[in-house]
Amino acid sequence: MPVLVMKFGGTSVADLARIENAAKKVKAEVERGYDVIVIVSAMSGETNKLVGFVEGTSNLYDAREYDAVVASGENVTAGLMALRLQEMDIPARSWQGWQVPINTTSAHSSARFISIPREHIDAKFAEGFKVAVVAGFQGVSAEGRITTLGRGGSDTTAVAFAAAFDAERCDIYTDVDGIYTTDPRITSKARKLDRIAFEEMLELASLGAKVLQTRSVELAMRYKVRLRVLSSFEDTDETSGTLVCDEDELMESKVVSGVAYSRDEAKMTLVTIEDRPGVASAIFGPLAEAGVNVDMIVQNISEKDIGNRTVAVTDMTFSCPVNQVARAQKAMEDARASGKISYDDLVVDTDVAKVSVVGIGMRSHAGVAAKMFDALSKENVNIKVIGTSEIKISVLIDRKYMELAVQALHDAFDLDKV
Amino acid sequence: MPVLVMKFGGTSVADLARIENAAKKVKAEVERGYDVIVIVSAMSGETNKLVGFVEGTSNLYDAREYDAVVASGENVTAGLMALRLQEMDIPARSWQGWQVPINTTSAHSSARFISIPREHIDAKFAEGFKVAVVAGFQGVSAEGRITTLGRGGSDTTAVAFAAAFDAERCDIYTDVDGIYTTDPRITSKARKLDRIAFEEMLELASLGAKVLQTRSVELAMRYKVRLRVLSSFEDTDETSGTLVCDEDELMESKVVSGVAYSRDEAKMTLVTIEDRPGVASAIFGPLAEAGVNVDMIVQNISEKDIGNRTVAVTDMTFSCPVNQVARAQKAMEDARASGKISYDDLVVDTDVAKVSVVGIGMRSHAGVAAKMFDALSKENVNIKVIGTSEIKISVLIDRKYMELAVQALHDAFDLDKV
Repeated sequence: MPVLVMKFGGTSVADLARIENAAKKVKAEVERGYDVIVIVSAMSGETNKLVGFVEGTSNLYDAREYDAVVASGENVTAGLMALRLQEMDIPARSWQGWQVPINTTSAHSSARFISIPREHIDAKFAEGFKVAVVAGFQGVSAEGRITTLGRGGSDTTAVAFAAAFDAERCDIYTDVDGIYTTDPRITSKARKLDRIAFEEMLELASLGAKVLQTRSVELAMRYKVRLRVLSSFEDTDETSGTLVCDEDELMESKVVSGVAYSRDEAKMTLVTIEDRPGVASAIFGPLAEAGVNVDMIVQNISEKDIGNRTVAVTDMTFSCPVNQVARAQKAMEDARASGKISYDDLVVDTDVAKVSVVGIGMRSHAGVAAKMFDALSKENVNIKVIGTSEIKISVLIDRKYMELAVQALHDAFDLDKV
Repeated sequence: MPVLVMKFGGTSVADLARIENAAKKVKAEVERGYDVIVIVSAMSGETNKLVGFVEGTSNLYDAREYDAVVASGENVTAGLMALRLQEMDIPARSWQGWQVPINTTSAHSSARFISIPREHIDAKFAEGFKVAVVAGFQGVSAEGRITTLGRGGSDTTAVAFAAAFDAERCDIYTDVDGIYTTDPRITSKARKLDRIAFEEMLELASLGAKVLQTRSVELAMRYKVRLRVLSSFEDTDETSGTLVCDEDELMESKVVSGVAYSRDEAKMTLVTIEDRPGVASAIFGPLAEAGVNVDMIVQNISEKDIGNRTVAVTDMTFSCPVNQVARAQKAMEDARASGKISYDDLVVDTDVAKVSVVGIGMRSHAGVAAKMFDALSKENVNIKVIGTSEIKISVLIDRKYMELAVQALHDAFDLDKV
């Protein structure tokens, strides 16, 4: 039998009625001839409640105990889903992480998979069971302690099972009906994509389209697991949602697939730093240690007279989430005070947003950047920083122009048309 | 190090403040020099919530999935208790049933212990851990599925650990401060007992003093585990509560230790059944099959002329919980219809209560029954049925006289005096 993995997130199993609704979707796939592995999250709110209990008990908590407490939410849903499927006359049983066993590292609360042996579940499928319901987000360490994978870990569990069981597809049921060319709240012209490449999804996810967890997409890409994102609140069939797949499977040949944005960015500029080998490391080392997620980095070199000699100097600009600005400032000031770096001024702009166009087609098409800058210029949007990757061009702009910029780019690249 | 087992029920760990309070009691015992095994229930209300989820999902549910869901409540408390103890600088960790492992039968939802290997926990104690927090109420079957022991199973878990670890004592923390001579709501003269024998506790428990689960007392008696019942809501020390122990340890030499009652009883009489070998089995077999918990049984033999011969006939009276009367009636009518038994009439009295005096001393003292009947007669309480065991005398009376009878018996046996 071909294997299908189906994953239901917290809002999709929030109460008994929704679990029943999810079970109906599982039943439909069983009737299509699949052996199904269902990965479930905790009922929405449960994980937060359990985390609150732990944080209310202990400040610097033992991550092993945290994991043991927090993983229990998924166990409840797994049992209830198995029971609901049995009520529908579908042979099913639940598996907790240690029962499979889902072997992980001992890095509690951010464990990584080591192996997912197929024997136990394969044996049940061979006996005639049609569905294995697996508690997501968790595993077991070599020491026999319960581990968790960190937030979003149920998506990762689903992809890992799809890889381990050579599943035909990994369907991620969530509260949106697919991946859009951009946020429909910003432009009503946003269009649901039928397919999108892993690489594009990664760029869209990290840029703010928070449908799929980045790590799960990376894992899917590595093991070539076909991911489908679809709604658990709508009637769905084999063509619903958006398929995230290898670019070989893409039918559309658009240069640009989507416009992403990130609202709460900050731009920081170190004015006049010395341009010598090691200076970038002297700046970004302390920022990393301070837990600042630096995103874009731009450097301009010029020359400056110091006393009787001319040295190469530069301004260094970088962006980070706006809520990390205070930490970043302190890290820079401390580094200057200790003599590791020198700069004349630290200019902070907390009123910027990032807008990006993403598309696997731009690898083979010139002129995307020019078209982007032209579209923004027509709307009088000033570009403050530009950054590019192979399949993405990002700009930092004043936050107040963000929606306007997204709309303009969506139009410029005809994203409303198939 | 001597080992102490401490068990905290659901109301004793109902929220984070109460878990902290319980942890303080554990700390006090660690400071007295014990290695402590703490058995925890689910936070009060949690188990009912989980049972509600299961029952809301499935009518004839798979007990294996029920167990997997319901056991998660204890896992949460175990982790939180370990964290709270760590906050108090006490080396502690949590164990779920499968981690110990607590090996049980596969009788899901009413599993029985097979073995509790000491190795893992002993190794942690040897490493310097002072407290092992164990999730109560659960275990693991030979098939690797999670089992539960049924309601009250956390008491049983505590006693089983006390037996397995040769614990000096098993302290059951609950919402009452000990075992009383009778229900203090019925007479303010009720007095807390310092000690009580296992056998007496068993009679009191099954008769309605619902402090300790019967099965846990049976287990304690078999393995000579000294049980102490005490309040988690009061300051306690080594002399608090009531010690349930072997009669060798009893200091008091009262003939009667307590007066128990059961309010919701029913009396049923089968009028004129034939007195032949096998007739009792023909009556009580169908009742057992119908799930009727028959308690007292009384039979009176007489003779009756049937046609031209005289046969021995009898009335058979038995008692059962009032909410099982309909089931009992149907079982008797069905048995008569199928010719298995015959009777002239089935008389049902649903307005009776049972009152019992219990005391290990009555084994060697005559006159207890006479004193009991005399006390009741002075209050004009009519006795409908009498039943006796070695350490207990029970009577069925009209329910409206129940409080009066308990008070009269408490006075007659001087139970308010030490």
